[in-house]
Amino acid sequence: MRAIFTVLLLLTGFLSVKGQSTDSLYLMPRPQSVRLQNGKFMFTPQFTIGVNGPVSEKLIAAVNRFYLQLGKRTGIYFPQEYITATDNNAEAQLSVRFSKTVLPEIGVDESYTLGVSSSKIVLIATTDIGAMRGLETLYQLVTPSGTGFYCPDVNISDSPRFKWRGLMIDVARHFITFEVLKRNIDAMAIVKMNVLHLHLSDDEGFRVESKIYPKLQQFGSNGLYYTQEQIKELVRYAHDRGIIIVPEFDLPGHSTSILAAYPFLASYPSNYKPARRFNMDTIKNLNLMTVMQLINTIPTPTIDPAKESTYTFFDNFFKEMSGLFPDAYLHIGADENNGVAWKQNPAIVAFMKAKELKTTDDLQAYFVKRLHDIAKKYNKRIIGWEEAFNPSVPQDMIVQKWKPAAATDTLIKSIIKHNNQVIVSTGFYLDMYFPAYIHYLNEPISANIPLADAEKGILGAEAAMWSESVNDGNEEIRVWPRTGAVAERLWSAANTKDVDDMYRRLWMLDFELNDCAIEENTNYMKILARWVNDEDLTPVRTLTSVYTQVKGYKRLMAAVLTPGEVHPKTNLSSPMVNIADAVHTDSETGWYFRKLVASYLDKHNAADLEQLKAQLQRWQNNKVRFNSLAVNSPYLQQISDLSDHLSSAATIGLAALNGDGNKDEQLKQLQQMEKPSHEVQLAILAEIEALVTGKLNPVPASYPMF
Amino acid sequence: MRAIFTVLLLLTGFLSVKGQSTDSLYLMPRPQSVRLQNGKFMFTPQFTIGVNGPVSEKLIAAVNRFYLQLGKRTGIYFPQEYITATDNNAEAQLSVRFSKTVLPEIGVDESYTLGVSSSKIVLIATTDIGAMRGLETLYQLVTPSGTGFYCPDVNISDSPRFKWRGLMIDVARHFITFEVLKRNIDAMAIVKMNVLHLHLSDDEGFRVESKIYPKLQQFGSNGLYYTQEQIKELVRYAHDRGIIIVPEFDLPGHSTSILAAYPFLASYPSNYKPARRFNMDTIKNLNLMTVMQLINTIPTPTIDPAKESTYTFFDNFFKEMSGLFPDAYLHIGADENNGVAWKQNPAIVAFMKAKELKTTDDLQAYFVKRLHDIAKKYNKRIIGWEEAFNPSVPQDMIVQKWKPAAATDTLIKSIIKHNNQVIVSTGFYLDMYFPAYIHYLNEPISANIPLADAEKGILGAEAAMWSESVNDGNEEIRVWPRTGAVAERLWSAANTKDVDDMYRRLWMLDFELNDCAIEENTNYMKILARWVNDEDLTPVRTLTSVYTQVKGYKRLMAAVLTPGEVHPKTNLSSPMVNIADAVHTDSETGWYFRKLVASYLDKHNAADLEQLKAQLQRWQNNKVRFNSLAVNSPYLQQISDLSDHLSSAATIGLAALNGDGNKDEQLKQLQQMEKPSHEVQLAILAEIEALVTGKLNPVPASYPMF
Repeated sequence: MRAIFTVLLLLTGFLSVKGQSTDSLYLMPRPQSVRLQNGKFMFTPQFTIGVNGPVSEKLIAAVNRFYLQLGKRTGIYFPQEYITATDNNAEAQLSVRFSKTVLPEIGVDESYTLGVSSSKIVLIATTDIGAMRGLETLYQLVTPSGTGFYCPDVNISDSPRFKWRGLMIDVARHFITFEVLKRNIDAMAIVKMNVLHLHLSDDEGFRVESKIYPKLQQFGSNGLYYTQEQIKELVRYAHDRGIIIVPEFDLPGHSTSILAAYPFLASYPSNYKPARRFNMDTIKNLNLMTVMQLINTIPTPTIDPAKESTYTFFDNFFKEMSGLFPDAYLHIGADENNGVAWKQNPAIVAFMKAKELKTTDDLQAYFVKRLHDIAKKYNKRIIGWEEAFNPSVPQDMIVQKWKPAAATDTLIKSIIKHNNQVIVSTGFYLDMYFPAYIHYLNEPISANIPLADAEKGILGAEAAMWSESVNDGNEEIRVWPRTGAVAERLWSAANTKDVDDMYRRLWMLDFELNDCAIEENTNYMKILARWVNDEDLTPVRTLTSVYTQVKGYKRLMAAVLTPGEVHPKTNLSSPMVNIADAVHTDSETGWYFRKLVASYLDKHNAADLEQLKAQLQRWQNNKVRFNSLAVNSPYLQQISDLSDHLSSAATIGLAALNGDGNKDEQLKQLQQMEKPSHEVQLAILAEIEALVTGKLNPVPASYPMF
Repeated sequence: MRAIFTVLLLLTGFLSVKGQSTDSLYLMPRPQSVRLQNGKFMFTPQFTIGVNGPVSEKLIAAVNRFYLQLGKRTGIYFPQEYITATDNNAEAQLSVRFSKTVLPEIGVDESYTLGVSSSKIVLIATTDIGAMRGLETLYQLVTPSGTGFYCPDVNISDSPRFKWRGLMIDVARHFITFEVLKRNIDAMAIVKMNVLHLHLSDDEGFRVESKIYPKLQQFGSNGLYYTQEQIKELVRYAHDRGIIIVPEFDLPGHSTSILAAYPFLASYPSNYKPARRFNMDTIKNLNLMTVMQLINTIPTPTIDPAKESTYTFFDNFFKEMSGLFPDAYLHIGADENNGVAWKQNPAIVAFMKAKELKTTDDLQAYFVKRLHDIAKKYNKRIIGWEEAFNPSVPQDMIVQKWKPAAATDTLIKSIIKHNNQVIVSTGFYLDMYFPAYIHYLNEPISANIPLADAEKGILGAEAAMWSESVNDGNEEIRVWPRTGAVAERLWSAANTKDVDDMYRRLWMLDFELNDCAIEENTNYMKILARWVNDEDLTPVRTLTSVYTQVKGYKRLMAAVLTPGEVHPKTNLSSPMVNIADAVHTDSETGWYFRKLVASYLDKHNAADLEQLKAQLQRWQNNKVRFNSLAVNSPYLQQISDLSDHLSSAATIGLAALNGDGNKDEQLKQLQQMEKPSHEVQLAILAEIEALVTGKLNPVPASYPMF
């Protein structure tokens, strides 16, 4: 990923000197306390590990993964082929010590201390899960040098800030395969997250096998769902990494796929089929306000809360699912139910009257309470999206806050006042395609909320990846490495806020994630390789490395926001192989370029100038090779305007460096290029503008939702 | 992969013109009959599929995979979100028609015909498996052009030459994960192979969960094995793709891991632990002959064939495994048993006397017969390696021929004479690290064997990937795309032998395999990325693209062949991240370079000269960037001699093109570079030598085993 700039640095005689500055560590999330000392622990073929503590199969497995991965990283053949519980020599070079084996759960002790001296590494934790968190830190300390791999001598003491550090993946809109979920779990373990929340059902699909209600997967999906065996393995896999799994079945709205299987559950009769949330045909040529009004006024597929058979069904179903998902939580959704379907059904209206429920909100609270009581029978604590909250719901329900910022504090305060607890997802919606720093600076505890209240009421937060425009071919590109920034926000101290330093570490985290967990780079390269039919990827990598997706819901709502334009329909089989599907949400190349521009504008030195010119010339010339490839590539022909823009922008940058051209004209041209095309935007325009004006503006503090 | 040469072609104004020459198709394996016509079927958003035939879940699943993958390849949003059995419109643009649903088995009808006209594609097969083979051919016909993706108009009629087209993977020496096996199955389906043979047990490890004898996996492995659930899923996965799975449990030798679990089965008492076949410590400083003698004279861990309890054990065990592996075959190994352990046990010697078994070979035949009878109870036909054959064994045993060529014909003749059948693996050993063309030209039916005998007696063949120096991080790099050449040898007509044309198609197959099935490129890039700590990969890609592993067993036996040299021990946790682990067995770059050199020596034209010089200069200059990266890379420092050699060889090539330098001196220098270093060899030396001498020698017809 850093290829371009390394080449430039080499050509201009500079070398990056990782590991030698004072800020030489690449830990993410940043531990609570780090004391760096002189000295190094060198890894050699004598490196051994001893584990001291009670029996913990999952820690032994984690130690073996660490040992194998360290072998791959360093190329060293270590003396122990694999570690067993009998390898308990406290004199081993790495001594892992813990006193308690625990199941992963919210609030379990995850603290650890790590001491590295030149001859010995000692990792101490209360629990085996704490020791696993410490192993991840230790792996991030491994550093290459001319003479071998080492850990710097260091004393680390660490524990998480929030108890609940989650990632929600929507597997309903587009199915995300079992393998991709496992890779996400590996990545979560690296950044010390502890909750994987699976949005298992929605209008578009029902994604888990039910044996008692098999029509759910048969009629509620396109054949793609997790078998019960896979769920069991997934739970084991997550538990082995100190992560719990929270299943969500979205009720009473967002339930078309369930109604397609069992229509008797519906509030109004219809020929239900798994639906499409953003069916462009339906909303084409309507404006945004009209669409919003439609959403609030038309009856939408909704579970009937007035029939007792509904509760019998969910009692059986929750019982079955509770056997499959052993962790303590069950998410019941309860979002975006406008109540219109209920009001149009006389039987439901009569039911409301009989139960003295004045509004459909009250009826939803009744429904939530009934599901709460069923779930409680199976030892589950329910979670609902913020619409589920109502002063009449039980206090042990957890409320997941998701709506954009306005009124967030007020709602959180009233939830806490009512003694419910909160998980914050407001500001952590990954499907907004905001850069990592936006989520990084999204503090879950507002200054308006008294700290004591916050500590009692705010369990933590969750990054949320809705999958309208994501499938298993690009889920990893979308979620990672951005979620590393969210993980740090939730694990590290509240005052860890240096965006520049976050990015420095995020790029290195991305290398680790791709090496040890995910296939983000692989998936990105596969999309590009198809465009060029296995010819040279370099020109399209150069191009895509400086484009990022349009931010906010501009893409999802494109048919509404720009009526008349043709946009491909999103369906269950969307290929998702266009540039907007492939590009990363943060441009690493753009970030390095920004640093270079900033340095040049500050110092006006020859070395920076030379690097800038080389980079701009490379961008300027990329067009020639791109056009040659386009001859046999239908897709490259489509997006040639993007290639032209990059070249034009680079030409303006070069002219500005030479003091050539009319500044106003240059700025006007750059401004024109800001308009998104193919649902992406050029990520280096502000920096080239800075070369024209001599002034680099700060990055925006926020981006609009539309 | 073809990056370098594409760039050169572009720079020199040439463009590859895929899809326009007479040899424009990229089908592998090549069908029995192909008639290419003018005209094209263009893929559009109107592309639909109808399937006509009896119920076949696996064909419907295959059609959906095809449809999804075609969407990803073309970027087109197709109108059917997914295909179901009710999508049986024969007027659809692609009409798939078949008359019989079958389970995958040896000898099932796999034939199909494929007709593509400008308006319609018709795929007709007798069985659903035949239709699946035809879908793979159809996908390989998809071609990009400036105006979109198309299939050329074509009439294809196709069926396999051999019934048994297998790949054996040794998962015992190094465990190969479930995910990697699934990816291999995907790749096998692409090249129309139909047997995955899993070598599930050997001295080093026992790799499948037994519920009745759980010590097998507990004491016979390092914790890495397939659960019964995984085996069931693997079988389903393979069957869905028309592939059977043949499990092998290697008996009576190669059984240390079994004896580690149940020592009562052993021919002599010992403290058995999963062993290491090539333990360098044991054989260091011995010469090859001494080692070979040792192998033949020392007692090796062997099952006791004289105890009735042995047969009770295997009766129970085969019964359990037969429930897990539903296909008709069970491989019992029976190779490399020198009989010494038997001769040293008085009870076994007494048993031989009592049963009138004169030699240990006869005793092995007795053992094989007993296992045969047990397997038959569970409806399994046994397979044994060639040592299992003995005129006294039952005729329904299949013999797998593996020893190097000498005496192959004689043995095959006597096996056929005895009415046993043969699977040929001689010449298909992938762990010899021979280039693809060697296996491609390895005809399974020798001219010495009468054709009628061969057709009766030779079922087919298997490529064999032994895993002493392979783990799940590089298995795909080793097996693919080479196995595509083996697949063509077994599927296509015997006279399909054009090596140049094979390679032309093999590189394109490799693109398809990496896009749709395997992670060969990903794994290769991951190893390189670790060497450079995520810095620019280009210099190490340039280097590794022209090195190939030393051929034959030179690497495995390195400690014997070059006594005194230090070689890392292979163990169960070998990192396998050195250059010999990462490089491909065939150099694609080397192949394109060879074509360029041949063209230049033939025509002496300016365009070739310019390309040659550009390539040689690139290699010459690579050293500078390599050395800069090496500053912080311990591994690059170790292999800098390889980088120096590439630069020196390129320098000689450039001098030769300019007519500079002393030819004898140049040839001497090139000859010195032929010596392997770091267990790899420079793959462009013969071509650079040709630039010096003016004469390009043909590639070797064979390579020595050591």
